[in-house]
Amino acid sequence: MNIDSFIETLALGVARERILSSDAARAPYECDGLTMFRVRPKLVVLPETTKEVSHVLKTCKAAGVPVVARGAGTGLSGGATPHADGVLLVMAKFNRIVAVDPLARTARVEPGVRNLAISEAVAPLGLYYAPDPSSQIACSIGGNIAENSGGVHCLKYGLTVHNVLAVTVALDDGEVVTFGSDAPDSPGLDLLALIIGSEGLLAIVLEVTVRLLPKPEETKVVMASFDDIEKAGAAVSAIIARGIIPAGLEMMDKPALAAVEDFVKAGYPLDAEALLLCEVDGSVDEVADELAKVEQVLRDGGATELRIARDDAERLLFWKGRKSAFPAVGRISPDYYCMDGTIPRKHLAKVLKRMAEMSTEYGLRCANVFHAGDGNLHPLILFDANVPGELERAEAFGAAILELSVEVGGTITGEHGVGLEKIDQMCAQFSSAELAQFHALKAAFDETGILNPGKAVPTLNRCAEFGHLHVHHGELPHPELERF
Amino acid sequence: MNIDSFIETLALGVARERILSSDAARAPYECDGLTMFRVRPKLVVLPETTKEVSHVLKTCKAAGVPVVARGAGTGLSGGATPHADGVLLVMAKFNRIVAVDPLARTARVEPGVRNLAISEAVAPLGLYYAPDPSSQIACSIGGNIAENSGGVHCLKYGLTVHNVLAVTVALDDGEVVTFGSDAPDSPGLDLLALIIGSEGLLAIVLEVTVRLLPKPEETKVVMASFDDIEKAGAAVSAIIARGIIPAGLEMMDKPALAAVEDFVKAGYPLDAEALLLCEVDGSVDEVADELAKVEQVLRDGGATELRIARDDAERLLFWKGRKSAFPAVGRISPDYYCMDGTIPRKHLAKVLKRMAEMSTEYGLRCANVFHAGDGNLHPLILFDANVPGELERAEAFGAAILELSVEVGGTITGEHGVGLEKIDQMCAQFSSAELAQFHALKAAFDETGILNPGKAVPTLNRCAEFGHLHVHHGELPHPELERF
Repeated sequence: MNIDSFIETLALGVARERILSSDAARAPYECDGLTMFRVRPKLVVLPETTKEVSHVLKTCKAAGVPVVARGAGTGLSGGATPHADGVLLVMAKFNRIVAVDPLARTARVEPGVRNLAISEAVAPLGLYYAPDPSSQIACSIGGNIAENSGGVHCLKYGLTVHNVLAVTVALDDGEVVTFGSDAPDSPGLDLLALIIGSEGLLAIVLEVTVRLLPKPEETKVVMASFDDIEKAGAAVSAIIARGIIPAGLEMMDKPALAAVEDFVKAGYPLDAEALLLCEVDGSVDEVADELAKVEQVLRDGGATELRIARDDAERLLFWKGRKSAFPAVGRISPDYYCMDGTIPRKHLAKVLKRMAEMSTEYGLRCANVFHAGDGNLHPLILFDANVPGELERAEAFGAAILELSVEVGGTITGEHGVGLEKIDQMCAQFSSAELAQFHALKAAFDETGILNPGKAVPTLNRCAEFGHLHVHHGELPHPELERF
Repeated sequence: MNIDSFIETLALGVARERILSSDAARAPYECDGLTMFRVRPKLVVLPETTKEVSHVLKTCKAAGVPVVARGAGTGLSGGATPHADGVLLVMAKFNRIVAVDPLARTARVEPGVRNLAISEAVAPLGLYYAPDPSSQIACSIGGNIAENSGGVHCLKYGLTVHNVLAVTVALDDGEVVTFGSDAPDSPGLDLLALIIGSEGLLAIVLEVTVRLLPKPEETKVVMASFDDIEKAGAAVSAIIARGIIPAGLEMMDKPALAAVEDFVKAGYPLDAEALLLCEVDGSVDEVADELAKVEQVLRDGGATELRIARDDAERLLFWKGRKSAFPAVGRISPDYYCMDGTIPRKHLAKVLKRMAEMSTEYGLRCANVFHAGDGNLHPLILFDANVPGELERAEAFGAAILELSVEVGGTITGEHGVGLEKIDQMCAQFSSAELAQFHALKAAFDETGILNPGKAVPTLNRCAEFGHLHVHHGELPHPELERF
């Protein structure tokens, strides 16, 4: 395909100034939040209307050109890493809040709207949007849909998939369809849930209806210090076992605390081996009751110090520390690698202990920050890419953590997605029959494979090379599905 | 295909005595809970093991024989209506609770386990399984998965899809795969959510991991009488608007109350135009606080009488009335037709008023029983099939209710599924592009269309005949997808 004639065709349906082809214009789009992968896209297109998106898709499908959608570019698994021969579809101009219905408690928004902007817009109505990734100031709701994003409050209020009622999407051929509805359930196959977390492989999101929640009457957070990380892990299980689902239940270990406190001055104790932040919300009575129970469980679990945020300002400061953990660690190490394994909560203590041993084995520091209540770990492996061998050791350490997660019955990703980063680990997570089913599904949406090729679901060939696939008599199962 | 040689082949992998071919043996399986559709299946097979299920599927796929799975046969939309030329796969022998993990709060069960049997088995651990369809004494968890079943407690605790962590299924070719995991989110496409509510079109469920919840410390129910059904509808919206998510929020109108009270003696007031049952659960303090708020909202909304169940026995009696509404109505009318439309909650009052008008227009009584908090209506249209024209009027009245539901932004089914019953209304609910996408998905799982053919998703041809499809230049869109 001739690039000039391709641009001509695109320009029949999209304003020419929003098709970026110069090196300078394309450079800022080389990577998303996973900066170790960098690819300059052939073209960057910034559509403004549904019609323009449909036109781009039709044109790309006809020419067999890959299309990668990008929201705010904050993703951590390379889901929006561009394709060198493809179009990067930047959805930033889809940034309108279309409608808010305070009675039905829903908002219809375009995919480029920032996560936090929704809660800000509906705050005067006493409402908010619950899923709150740490990047919520910047990340877009379209990206949240692609990754099924979580956040500190997802333990009680669910992931993106539990808080979205409907999506309107463009299919690979530009056709526009809507899945889900304002009603609690929708007839037909559940394509809404399928779209959420599909990492740009199935369709391009054009509009999203989210569920809003009433702001709780009262919110309190308690901070508990522990002199032993396994005790902190056990206390997490004990809180849940007591029948309490806190609004947030987060944990940080000593290296993470040191980095954060130096950066944010959140008032964290520097002598603790581990810190738990536990938030409870609800009516005034409910919060008082739950808080008393949580304090009791934490004391019984061996907490050395308990502090309840004295007011909302201090509460937000406690959370600011947690939410700033990634940049804080970035200040104390030239490089870091953030993992996202999720494990059954009951194995928390065991896995924490094993990770500490691995840290010694691989000779790399590791700061732990995680959604403890969910069992979603975010170990940050610290390394210096300029020291020969450290990057390789960091990658090996990371892979070992993910494989440990699968081994104890967990998964390789909690909320950051597979993207490019964890595609090999998918071979450890799934059987070839399961991967073949993913490919069949993908083909049902995008038979020619133009949408975000090479991401999220590995080909069976790739798994065979990675060494995890069972190959029978030298033949791959389902070779006809090796399309992507 | 010769039936005897087909049975021979089946018997290579399934004990002969569990392949039923005689008229007498097949007769009890002619219908599910939607008794107006009756079809005698060619064969009934009762497998006992995964290997047997795989063998049946492989054999049927090779011979092009349809397979319809059946749980307890309580479904209300004909999802398990047999196929005259097919095998009815009765999963009743898959009835073991395989494992309970009280710490992770999960249970692994086979699909034939009854919904209520799960809660009974884990009651000694202080746990229960939340989704509670009215048929929970009889219905199976496999059927709950097929229909994404709800129940009176789903307003607060979610539908089946929110309470299932993983499913192991057999695909059309007998291959066994697992979707989901014990972790809160799972990488890869969300095939777990896709399977749930897929009405037997995609796979046969072999094992289910469900989430268990701790039994609340306290549960209270308040019964509120209204002299006007629109006031009751408005009170439902007002409770939710007050920031309360009750554990259950159910409504019955006067005809339903009369039928139920006569049958169950639940102590319902017979002079009320509408009754609300509102349950709150949680800690003792939380319940006291929420109950006070609910009472206030109900009083402000014009409730003429409020009664709080004085003990657990009375509370269960209040609910027994609600859960017995269908059989109660069966006692006062030779026939009834139960609808399952779902509407945005804010339109409750308006839709109730319109349904009362329709009742006059069609000359048929209608008793209303519904999950008011969810906006999920269960109008029971009373008729006598022996009176010429009444069945047709009942069907027309029902269709009009469903179309009204779609018109106000709702859907044609809340929890009973589409099955055979509402397949034409799917043409009103979805565009041809959306239906084509459902067909593509179906083909990705079951290319030859042997699993539950003719259910849930109408062919585009059928929609064209039904008069709802936009046909362009006399040609159907996507004729290549007209497979099922």
